[in-house]
Amino acid sequence: MTNICLKVSYDGTNFSGFQLQAGNIPTIQGALEAALNRIYRQPVRITAAGRTDAGVHALGQVVNYPAPFYIPVDKIPRAINSLVPREIVVWEAEKRSARFHARFSARKKFYSYTLDRAPFPRVMKRRYTWHCPFSLDLGAMAEGASLLGGRHDFSAFRARGSSTGSPVKTLHRVLVINLPDQQLLRFTFEGEGFLYKMVRLMVGSLIRVGRGRLRPVDLAEALAGRQPGAVGPVAPPRGLCLEKVEY
Amino acid sequence: MTNICLKVSYDGTNFSGFQLQAGNIPTIQGALEAALNRIYRQPVRITAAGRTDAGVHALGQVVNYPAPFYIPVDKIPRAINSLVPREIVVWEAEKRSARFHARFSARKKFYSYTLDRAPFPRVMKRRYTWHCPFSLDLGAMAEGASLLGGRHDFSAFRARGSSTGSPVKTLHRVLVINLPDQQLLRFTFEGEGFLYKMVRLMVGSLIRVGRGRLRPVDLAEALAGRQPGAVGPVAPPRGLCLEKVEY
Repeated sequence: MTNICLKVSYDGTNFSGFQLQAGNIPTIQGALEAALNRIYRQPVRITAAGRTDAGVHALGQVVNYPAPFYIPVDKIPRAINSLVPREIVVWEAEKRSARFHARFSARKKFYSYTLDRAPFPRVMKRRYTWHCPFSLDLGAMAEGASLLGGRHDFSAFRARGSSTGSPVKTLHRVLVINLPDQQLLRFTFEGEGFLYKMVRLMVGSLIRVGRGRLRPVDLAEALAGRQPGAVGPVAPPRGLCLEKVEY
Repeated sequence: MTNICLKVSYDGTNFSGFQLQAGNIPTIQGALEAALNRIYRQPVRITAAGRTDAGVHALGQVVNYPAPFYIPVDKIPRAINSLVPREIVVWEAEKRSARFHARFSARKKFYSYTLDRAPFPRVMKRRYTWHCPFSLDLGAMAEGASLLGGRHDFSAFRARGSSTGSPVKTLHRVLVINLPDQQLLRFTFEGEGFLYKMVRLMVGSLIRVGRGRLRPVDLAEALAGRQPGAVGPVAPPRGLCLEKVEY
């Protein structure tokens, strides 16, 4: 068996998330596995770096699978792309060692969350942004973002329905990037791992800080478990994108 | 009656064009008129600057309608936006003189057509671009574009099923704008009027010039009616956008 690693981008709008579900529910995993089953003429199971939620996008999702037989890696992206919906694009395939596991070998993940700051939502950005036209205190948001960074127990920023794993994670960096010429504001989150809806809960809190409804320090209090009311709301999925995974 | 003028943007992907059609076919006009009918509680008929085709987008479409009664113009965009699908956004409303007609008063229209030049199509650009990863001779394309500019009989660049009006139009300017850092190539067309599928036929021809399959001068020959084979193919609608209308 060859261990094949794919880099995958997708517009998650019309999918019920990455993870395979029972029935005819459209998922990224379902679409990719259906394509691989046709290519290899047998069931192929893929593993992903991060199981993105319904409506969440990816530019650099990473998956791997055991290939039942050899196909030149440079042929694989086009073969898959011809069999999946157009919202999914595989843009790289590589052979990796047998030990490589898209999820467990991942060292860092990078997520972005983008706000559309134009007075009216821009139709060509709408699927990929959250429209937040109101004024925001960017300094306070940057301060709040820096308080979220570091090694913490992130239980407060985890949604229910969440799964396994330690809530103690290192969030290497949270940035608030203003792009005024594009009327966009982008958050970037670089961390070793993320809990269920953690990024979207942080974005929701940071926006409340930006509107002056929370102080930056309230986020530190929330992390310490002393201010659960400072967490959220969950920002809508369409602004979120899994940008990159580092191994 | 007050003559109200709206500036409208839309993602045309899921619409069968601007113009109202019989039955339950989704059109931009149908969606806007349904919203206005609810707001004014009577039928309201709109007139548009340009009736864009199925799948074509707009950032600055202009429409006008006779308002049966007064509503403050600053309330109108949000009222309409709350009643139309999210792919449509009205971003300005103004009172205009009774003589103003969105179509007949228009002096110039600006269209853009965008190509995605990345090796693999970018999922967040796909709805708004044509993926053309192959190499293109931009110099030859710019030369061809300049030959299309000017006052000509554009009959050769008109699709069948086309309607009324003189085929003699002034195309003030055609530009080929390379945006290498974004891996995009954009054509812009500034003209007093456009025939049915004229922009998309020009884009199709210009890309054949860029691939070395036509000479720039073949476009001038096509305009003169001496080389119909140099016209087209019709580029897909998703790269096309009505950017602006000048009055």
